[in-house]
Amino acid sequence: MASSACILAISFLALVFFLAFASDQSPIQDFCVANNGSTVLLNGLTCKDPKEVVADDFSFSGLHLAANTSNALGCHVTPVTPSEMPGLNTLGLSIVRIDYAPQGINPLHTHPRASEILIVLEGSLEVGFITSFPENRHIGKVLQKGDAFVFPVGLVHYQRNPGPTNAVAIAALSSQNPGVIIVANAVFGSIPNISSNIIEKSFQINKKAIGYLQTKF
Amino acid sequence: MASSACILAISFLALVFFLAFASDQSPIQDFCVANNGSTVLLNGLTCKDPKEVVADDFSFSGLHLAANTSNALGCHVTPVTPSEMPGLNTLGLSIVRIDYAPQGINPLHTHPRASEILIVLEGSLEVGFITSFPENRHIGKVLQKGDAFVFPVGLVHYQRNPGPTNAVAIAALSSQNPGVIIVANAVFGSIPNISSNIIEKSFQINKKAIGYLQTKF
Amino acid sequence: MASSACILAISFLALVFFLAFASDQSPIQDFCVANNGSTVLLNGLTCKDPKEVVADDFSFSGLHLAANTSNALGCHVTPVTPSEMPGLNTLGLSIVRIDYAPQGINPLHTHPRASEILIVLEGSLEVGFITSFPENRHIGKVLQKGDAFVFPVGLVHYQRNPGPTNAVAIAALSSQNPGVIIVANAVFGSIPNISSNIIEKSFQINKKAIGYLQTKF
Amino acid sequence: MASSACILAISFLALVFFLAFASDQSPIQDFCVANNGSTVLLNGLTCKDPKEVVADDFSFSGLHLAANTSNALGCHVTPVTPSEMPGLNTLGLSIVRIDYAPQGINPLHTHPRASEILIVLEGSLEVGFITSFPENRHIGKVLQKGDAFVFPVGLVHYQRNPGPTNAVAIAALSSQNPGVIIVANAVFGSIPNISSNIIEKSFQINKKAIGYLQTKF
Amino acid sequence: MASSACILAISFLALVFFLAFASDQSPIQDFCVANNGSTVLLNGLTCKDPKEVVADDFSFSGLHLAANTSNALGCHVTPVTPSEMPGLNTLGLSIVRIDYAPQGINPLHTHPRASEILIVLEGSLEVGFITSFPENRHIGKVLQKGDAFVFPVGLVHYQRNPGPTNAVAIAALSSQNPGVIIVANAVFGSIPNISSNIIEKSFQINKKAIGYLQTKF
Amino acid sequence: MASSACILAISFLALVFFLAFASDQSPIQDFCVANNGSTVLLNGLTCKDPKEVVADDFSFSGLHLAANTSNALGCHVTPVTPSEMPGLNTLGLSIVRIDYAPQGINPLHTHPRASEILIVLEGSLEVGFITSFPENRHIGKVLQKGDAFVFPVGLVHYQRNPGPTNAVAIAALSSQNPGVIIVANAVFGSIPNISSNIIEKSFQINKKAIGYLQTKF
Repeated sequence: MASSACILAISFLALVFFLAFASDQSPIQDFCVANNGSTVLLNGLTCKDPKEVVADDFSFSGLHLAANTSNALGCHVTPVTPSEMPGLNTLGLSIVRIDYAPQGINPLHTHPRASEILIVLEGSLEVGFITSFPENRHIGKVLQKGDAFVFPVGLVHYQRNPGPTNAVAIAALSSQNPGVIIVANAVFGSIPNISSNIIEKSFQINKKAIGYLQTKF
Repeated sequence: MASSACILAISFLALVFFLAFASDQSPIQDFCVANNGSTVLLNGLTCKDPKEVVADDFSFSGLHLAANTSNALGCHVTPVTPSEMPGLNTLGLSIVRIDYAPQGINPLHTHPRASEILIVLEGSLEVGFITSFPENRHIGKVLQKGDAFVFPVGLVHYQRNPGPTNAVAIAALSSQNPGVIIVANAVFGSIPNISSNIIEKSFQINKKAIGYLQTKF
Repeated sequence: MASSACILAISFLALVFFLAFASDQSPIQDFCVANNGSTVLLNGLTCKDPKEVVADDFSFSGLHLAANTSNALGCHVTPVTPSEMPGLNTLGLSIVRIDYAPQGINPLHTHPRASEILIVLEGSLEVGFITSFPENRHIGKVLQKGDAFVFPVGLVHYQRNPGPTNAVAIAALSSQNPGVIIVANAVFGSIPNISSNIIEKSFQINKKAIGYLQTKF
Repeated sequence: MASSACILAISFLALVFFLAFASDQSPIQDFCVANNGSTVLLNGLTCKDPKEVVADDFSFSGLHLAANTSNALGCHVTPVTPSEMPGLNTLGLSIVRIDYAPQGINPLHTHPRASEILIVLEGSLEVGFITSFPENRHIGKVLQKGDAFVFPVGLVHYQRNPGPTNAVAIAALSSQNPGVIIVANAVFGSIPNISSNIIEKSFQINKKAIGYLQTKF
Repeated sequence: MASSACILAISFLALVFFLAFASDQSPIQDFCVANNGSTVLLNGLTCKDPKEVVADDFSFSGLHLAANTSNALGCHVTPVTPSEMPGLNTLGLSIVRIDYAPQGINPLHTHPRASEILIVLEGSLEVGFITSFPENRHIGKVLQKGDAFVFPVGLVHYQRNPGPTNAVAIAALSSQNPGVIIVANAVFGSIPNISSNIIEKSFQINKKAIGYLQTKF
Repeated sequence: MASSACILAISFLALVFFLAFASDQSPIQDFCVANNGSTVLLNGLTCKDPKEVVADDFSFSGLHLAANTSNALGCHVTPVTPSEMPGLNTLGLSIVRIDYAPQGINPLHTHPRASEILIVLEGSLEVGFITSFPENRHIGKVLQKGDAFVFPVGLVHYQRNPGPTNAVAIAALSSQNPGVIIVANAVFGSIPNISSNIIEKSFQINKKAIGYLQTKF
């Protein structure tokens, strides 16, 4: 796997998601603050005793801090999910801060369980998504500071900082556990590897190229 | 009604919501860009012909701009909903920017159809929500720049800028049409007025006090 | 807090709700009778072993009995939720009986998680709800015996017995745990109190009036 | 078809449902009052212009009136759905009043799209439901005035007035369009008839008995 | 109860459903493989530790094998639900294989929690469903090999093999736990029996006929 | 774009989806048969007048017929959606038949709005899916005739016929409009092309390789 703070940061997010099963059905009580240590796993996290809930369960700090983007992608994702903010459990929302070095990218990926609104706080971003087959229509735009853009659920999308300075964005997602599928990592970095027969025909590339790419993810 | 940019701005949002019926069920196509001029009203907006959809349908500009908060509440809300960003239709998300003058408040209110995550971009904010009856537990905190806080769906909540400088926040809501019920306006500013018999017993105040308050909203 | 059977009765309901987390997603089995003593808390109640389920789990008695309305509001609410009728769990419904003394009111409140249909069994009731900001439209009517009225989810509403005799209503709600937010109690009776700075600006009233009101709820 | 006020009354309800397609997804605006005359048919009714909405759209009268139960079943159902109360549209609830003559029954039926809570206002009722195959467990009880009982969605159930006097019930259903499948009418009264080959094996009865029963429904 | 492989096979399915409470809300993680031995019962199955999940959790074998249809109905159902394929948990789908002897039937039944698409793999099938009251419209057709047909959720439906050879179908259902209510078994085979008073009026048949039928189911 | 019957067939499916906006919320009437020619576009198809509905609206023929797989991928998909079977509208299900030549593949793709169960009718298939980031766990298996496998919603998956003979599968999907994103086509075949800057970093390949691949999709 490429050594990448962007990937590593998302990685942490995804790992947490995997262990901390979340729930996007409607809430049935004022709140159900995640009991992150529970051994009962279900489609959604179990709740803490409401009497033990405190204000800090509903808050998170540090989203104003620049992250280290010194990695291959020039990108870093800071997630805020029920792992970081337990009060989010059952409320159907999460957020992330994304830092981009100049020329940094958040590579082609999908969120299988959420739509996303992204807001540019600093710098500019080239963004886009691709509609489903067979149109494969590429809908994209260059965003400036103060611009927002929406990526519909499940579609492949990306962001890239075209500028000479750092860029910063906040994104809101319509699930407490949106999940992230990074296309290159899913295709070339799966464990174990996908058979080269599949990739060869899917991408019309030869075994040697596949072997080369599999060393990268 | 008090002359207030905060209220007026939200007002526009709410007006738009009322006319532009929205839909928070799951999307059943890549996107359903709002056809804001349609005469067919339903639980959700009808869609534009997909062939006429353009990138600008998914974007919005100007969230970096300070709004005018010279009003009684010292607060201004700039909404981003399907009226401003038609591509949001059916995706279950919306956002707002909120500006607060020093001592400005976003008064006690509820969103009947959404939970909300708020992120402080500038300044500090005193925030809180109250749980449902009979606990009426007040869960609150002072947030600094970079802090986030979540308000569960339907609960009464508020923000106040305690500081000497302006404050700015971005908030994400889990509905394209969250709605807003400002408690004071609903109680004292409804058209026509609620009978003083109701308010008297609900608030344990006398008719004279009610009459006074009804002139304010 | 005002000594009120209406409030106390709802209070019990709400307390139960808080402890007995409920679930309004669709049922996935014939029934999931609430296991009210479970220590596993989730977005919905866990179920009893189906082999231990009995007919009484699906029933409740006493809705024909007049309740004591000798309290400040002249109102009493008798709830039927999964605490009282465990078979309701996962079915998305609950009911209440409401008794009103002459001039009694069910004060201004919202249900954050349910719409409500009310049916007048005895006497007459003045009822109404207020739409969201900025319309704050007040839609109300005087109901006679045999009349029904619907209050949409999350909106502020009330009932008042204008008549010289007792009134009785049955109401059905579209959640097993609708929740209730009594406006005055949330604003003036929260624990701890909301800062007077917030209330002052929200309601345009001075600190002295706030202090007076906070002694009442 | 048997000449039955109970069946005829439900019949009206069902007919209305069929023409007036309803929507039980969550509401996305304060209300979406049914535009009952619309030619646009969808999964849910289209809405009236909110400016034309009046208080009567949210109300219905006459539920205190005894209905005529002089029919073969000794039963009459008075429905309150978006056809009778347009404001119910999108709110996920409906109600009915049911009158039973002595020995009258609401015959074996299911609601394909709703759970039901029934409250006995007058007299007594023998009620029950049958769980799904293979248990086919019959869970039933005799209810007295003031008793409530819940029937889970989709299960076969019935009510019968065992007493010497009339009985009256109010029932709330968790859909604006619950639908009703009367078992005997579906099996023996369908148009066109179900082939006797199917019924013969399904019910282990012979063609002559089937022919006889088909004349009854 | 009639000795029937069709009924017995479905019976197993239903039994499993009853014990293995399932969940059709949207998944909130990549998967939540059913922990079939869990003692925590809820509206949906709890999950295995994701680290213990294996490929076999997502697969099932044997759907190409003809089942024994030597029973009164000439029908056999082979279910694939989370009990047989634990990976189905939370995904909102299940399938069955149905074998029909010549003249075999899958008797009149409903699925309270799923719509169904049936595909004929071998032979031909006479199929149909009946709409709800009061239309009771019978919509049916004879299907040949390669034909598909859809039965809407909750409606009474059937299949019958009219041909001289065996028939085979695969059906997909829109719930992991659709449930099955076999009309004759619910009416005449419930435990304990439904009072003959109810059946007599519901079906307009006399006590003797009822007694006879109750011996059959 | 590669000339491929597999892609072309799916293409037709997808095109249809795009024009025929579908609805996966719960049905609110017995059926809502798609009015495929309607000019009102919404999140779900509008319905035909129920009086004009016929049995053929619920059926589809030809799933037993082998399709032509003489194309680059050796694969052909035959869809059954509301376009082909209008009665599917609002029921949350669709199916496809997939034909595979020896060594044929259904290339790496996701369904943004559905989980899928696949059943092997003839031959054998090597299948698998990849979990989300950062695990990127590849869960796969070789299926024989009569085996079934489930692919969770939104995850990248594939099928490949490893055998010397044709293979045939039926798959059921949990949406009437699952959508399909073919990874290679989204990445290298979008219109207009994704900037090579994005692909270069996402896949760690150079501009020349990208240019080469873009000629293939």
